[in-house]
Amino acid sequence: MDTARSLEVADLQALLDSELFADWVRELALRVDAITNVAVHLTLPVAPRHVHGGGVLCGQTLMAAADTAMVLAISAALGGFRPMTTVQLQTSFLRPIAGDSGAAAITARVLRKGKTLVFGEIQIADAKGQLAVHATTTYALL
Amino acid sequence: MDTARSLEVADLQALLDSELFADWVRELALRVDAITNVAVHLTLPVAPRHVHGGGVLCGQTLMAAADTAMVLAISAALGGFRPMTTVQLQTSFLRPIAGDSGAAAITARVLRKGKTLVFGEIQIADAKGQLAVHATTTYALL
Amino acid sequence: MDTARSLEVADLQALLDSELFADWVRELALRVDAITNVAVHLTLPVAPRHVHGGGVLCGQTLMAAADTAMVLAISAALGGFRPMTTVQLQTSFLRPIAGDSGAAAITARVLRKGKTLVFGEIQIADAKGQLAVHATTTYALL
Amino acid sequence: MDTARSLEVADLQALLDSELFADWVRELALRVDAITNVAVHLTLPVAPRHVHGGGVLCGQTLMAAADTAMVLAISAALGGFRPMTTVQLQTSFLRPIAGDSGAAAITARVLRKGKTLVFGEIQIADAKGQLAVHATTTYALL
Repeated sequence: MDTARSLEVADLQALLDSELFADWVRELALRVDAITNVAVHLTLPVAPRHVHGGGVLCGQTLMAAADTAMVLAISAALGGFRPMTTVQLQTSFLRPIAGDSGAAAITARVLRKGKTLVFGEIQIADAKGQLAVHATTTYALL
Repeated sequence: MDTARSLEVADLQALLDSELFADWVRELALRVDAITNVAVHLTLPVAPRHVHGGGVLCGQTLMAAADTAMVLAISAALGGFRPMTTVQLQTSFLRPIAGDSGAAAITARVLRKGKTLVFGEIQIADAKGQLAVHATTTYALL
Repeated sequence: MDTARSLEVADLQALLDSELFADWVRELALRVDAITNVAVHLTLPVAPRHVHGGGVLCGQTLMAAADTAMVLAISAALGGFRPMTTVQLQTSFLRPIAGDSGAAAITARVLRKGKTLVFGEIQIADAKGQLAVHATTTYALL
Repeated sequence: MDTARSLEVADLQALLDSELFADWVRELALRVDAITNVAVHLTLPVAPRHVHGGGVLCGQTLMAAADTAMVLAISAALGGFRPMTTVQLQTSFLRPIAGDSGAAAITARVLRKGKTLVFGEIQIADAKGQLAVHATTTYALL
């Protein structure tokens, strides 16, 4: 990756806020917190619009956040956005995230970057730092 | 299931439009089309707000629709809604759904209803009837 | 698939018994029963060597059988074996298969054959015809 | 877990070699290397019987090893074996493991232990320490 331009937090945030993502997805209001050489860290606000009748953050929001975070992690690993498509995404829901808990913390990391396939892992922790969601995914670079 | 009240399309649509689901999820604007004794059929409108920069329905919307459809299929199988939680959901994206294709068709079916765990399968077809998304999932009844 | 040579049951059985598969995998003793234009059907003997202390067919055997069956289904769809690799395989275990139930029935089907990626689904039914295992998978053609 | 008996490497190895596991699975010849308070570490010999025609360790063996390792990790977390069943197991194959590479290293860890469901993660590294297989899984305690 020597030749790849190194992306900054502001670059990924700009990507996140761009029309690359559907309007409905941008309403997740994800915030990029940090980029390391192995992972991207984001904050997912726990907003009332994403809380279901049971009083917890809905699974649909968590899967959407995981997928979105991974696109950023891959972009960071590639030194910039490249057209890609999700091949599969498997999400496990370990514990609920309370609807009044403020925010969740997402860590998305690339496990393996092949020529056309990229494998990744996403973890979402609740406000106490406990692992709430674990996802693994495969993307195809187009 | 002899003793279970048989749910009608209108019952499931009412469930879908209720506060059981988060506001953000209700914006999927899913429509219940039919219930058989093995599956629930729904229409997912392909709305501009759910189309990403690549011109196709975004994966986040498809996963959210799959999860939501499954809650309805389980409710239909149980004869009514019961508190439940998604344990895991695995989605495979077989082909893109064009952003101008109008609507997609969802079929959600219960594969196995155990005492506490329910297994299901969700298929989403594009406007030509081609399988675009295939998901499998496990729910825990609470 | 007009130009593809049509594979017969004997061709797939020969493939199964060849050194394409590891010795340990061939000990599953799978038998090809039928090929249709959408699926391959196989029998998995429930042998004592594959039954664990709980008295049921072990999950390891079921996953191995699912993966193996899918290689045959893809070969059938392609009109012959082509080098490929499993990208991911997700298996759900719906109900146990009794260790003295004789045999299980596998159906493996290709859901989508792209240029480099192939998506498939595998179902394993117990001796009563009840769905016991459901798997979905992605392969990459090399 | 204060009250749980702490398992030693020898205890887990004895479990692995017992009739809890099917004969066919014991032929994986897994060796328990270490137990920490978060993970179990094992060695998987890359034996010729597990190498397929393409010259690499077959996927069936890797999935079987992942599942088996997880049973040990859960047993370690519980302070002893308890009847359990695999609910689902998703495996991603990131890179091949060469058939002549000697051995692979497995790390299995419990991500979340609920009352009836246990979530785990398994990583298998090749002889160079590179991540080759990543699996996530859900078990139900019986």
